[in-house]
Amino acid sequence: MEVVLVSPRNPLNIGAAARAMANFGFRRLTIVAPFATNWTEAKSAVGAPDLLREARVLETLAEAVADCTFVLGTGSLDRRRPEQTILGLPDAAAQVRQALFPGHTLSPDRSNGRVALLFGSEKHGLTSEDLSWCHAITVIDTCDTQPSMNLGQAVAVCLYEISRSGEATPGNVNLVTGESDRHLPDSEQLDRLASLIEETMASVNYATRGMRSANGEALRVLLRRLMPNDADLRRMMGLFRRILWQLRHSGNRS
Amino acid sequence: MEVVLVSPRNPLNIGAAARAMANFGFRRLTIVAPFATNWTEAKSAVGAPDLLREARVLETLAEAVADCTFVLGTGSLDRRRPEQTILGLPDAAAQVRQALFPGHTLSPDRSNGRVALLFGSEKHGLTSEDLSWCHAITVIDTCDTQPSMNLGQAVAVCLYEISRSGEATPGNVNLVTGESDRHLPDSEQLDRLASLIEETMASVNYATRGMRSANGEALRVLLRRLMPNDADLRRMMGLFRRILWQLRHSGNRS
Repeated sequence: MEVVLVSPRNPLNIGAAARAMANFGFRRLTIVAPFATNWTEAKSAVGAPDLLREARVLETLAEAVADCTFVLGTGSLDRRRPEQTILGLPDAAAQVRQALFPGHTLSPDRSNGRVALLFGSEKHGLTSEDLSWCHAITVIDTCDTQPSMNLGQAVAVCLYEISRSGEATPGNVNLVTGESDRHLPDSEQLDRLASLIEETMASVNYATRGMRSANGEALRVLLRRLMPNDADLRRMMGLFRRILWQLRHSGNRS
Repeated sequence: MEVVLVSPRNPLNIGAAARAMANFGFRRLTIVAPFATNWTEAKSAVGAPDLLREARVLETLAEAVADCTFVLGTGSLDRRRPEQTILGLPDAAAQVRQALFPGHTLSPDRSNGRVALLFGSEKHGLTSEDLSWCHAITVIDTCDTQPSMNLGQAVAVCLYEISRSGEATPGNVNLVTGESDRHLPDSEQLDRLASLIEETMASVNYATRGMRSANGEALRVLLRRLMPNDADLRRMMGLFRRILWQLRHSGNRS
């Protein structure tokens, strides 16, 4: 996929767009009719990603999108009523993925091209002539009071949305541990902790309505809901063993 | 929801964060321990959104999140292996929405608060002490070759994802609130429980490597990771108060 910046003005924004591309794994950048000095400044900035130095610079948008099968424009629509299909960003991103990889999920190499994503200048956005090259236009859903996004941030949000896999992440895995090497205790281990806590509660004559249930159901549910990992379990068992020991010890001395 | 920038350095990034907030309808900004001159410059920039001038400026992160029931940290994990749950951004955003509006979809007024979204400084990101206040940490899925995002762009992407609507919230509801009517304790209440546990540990001379850290960081992280609800908190406080009473009582008799 080609990211195309049409007449960008601020070198910092050009750099920010390039950085977002690097963040999300896009490599092909085209700058159309840049303001010459600003472009030179952006390109020579310290730490500029390679893709910025390797960007195509073209005079016209027509050349930039010549080989593309799907051209997506971006912008707010406050002043314009273009004829093209207007898509929310999630739908537009799905179309881009579909156009890039018909029938496939997103590949690690996102440089296949033939799709272009256009951003206009900070001042005007895409002109209606620019938009005339577009198959569809996407609008990021922003507040009416401040609809216009900064160029670098708009690029970041669009590329984030396009690069998302679209597949639901298996919530349970990362919600529990975040990492695969962090093990959860099994039911039996949790029950051992529950027994220790119950013993402690009995030792100190602690009984609330919420914890009193004869079969320890409330405590069992609590421990499963909190989902301590193995290390947590060891710490808690250690603490309650130590408390019980101390209570017995104090008792013997009395 | 509160957006919290911890020790931001670049005035342009502070401004960009504020602009993204305005774009996506968030209004409450807190700056923790900013570099004074940079903050003044950011605040007085031409065209700065009102929310930037109205931002809270606080000395410590503890104050910033004191009344929050769900604190979400952001960052890359290249150097760190935090203990908290690590969530992909879509899952984290769903949890934030759920914590803000249990059982409801996102309302137009997103300023309810009690949820904080933390961003670290451009240089270091969030430190491990910063992360110890977090219930979960989210990582934007970026390329291995250029994982680190610009601060303003990271804010934009996170707020875009949090403010997106129209999708079913995933089935991980119970990790945030259990049920919609089950409230979470705020940061200050968790700290009171932590103090009680620390007192108990001291009383019984319990110290493991995993819990020994001088400033109670490990315990703070543990409690936030387990996410007890209000009722759990009351039970735990009750139990530890009772244990402490019993220990003192036994001691007196001996």
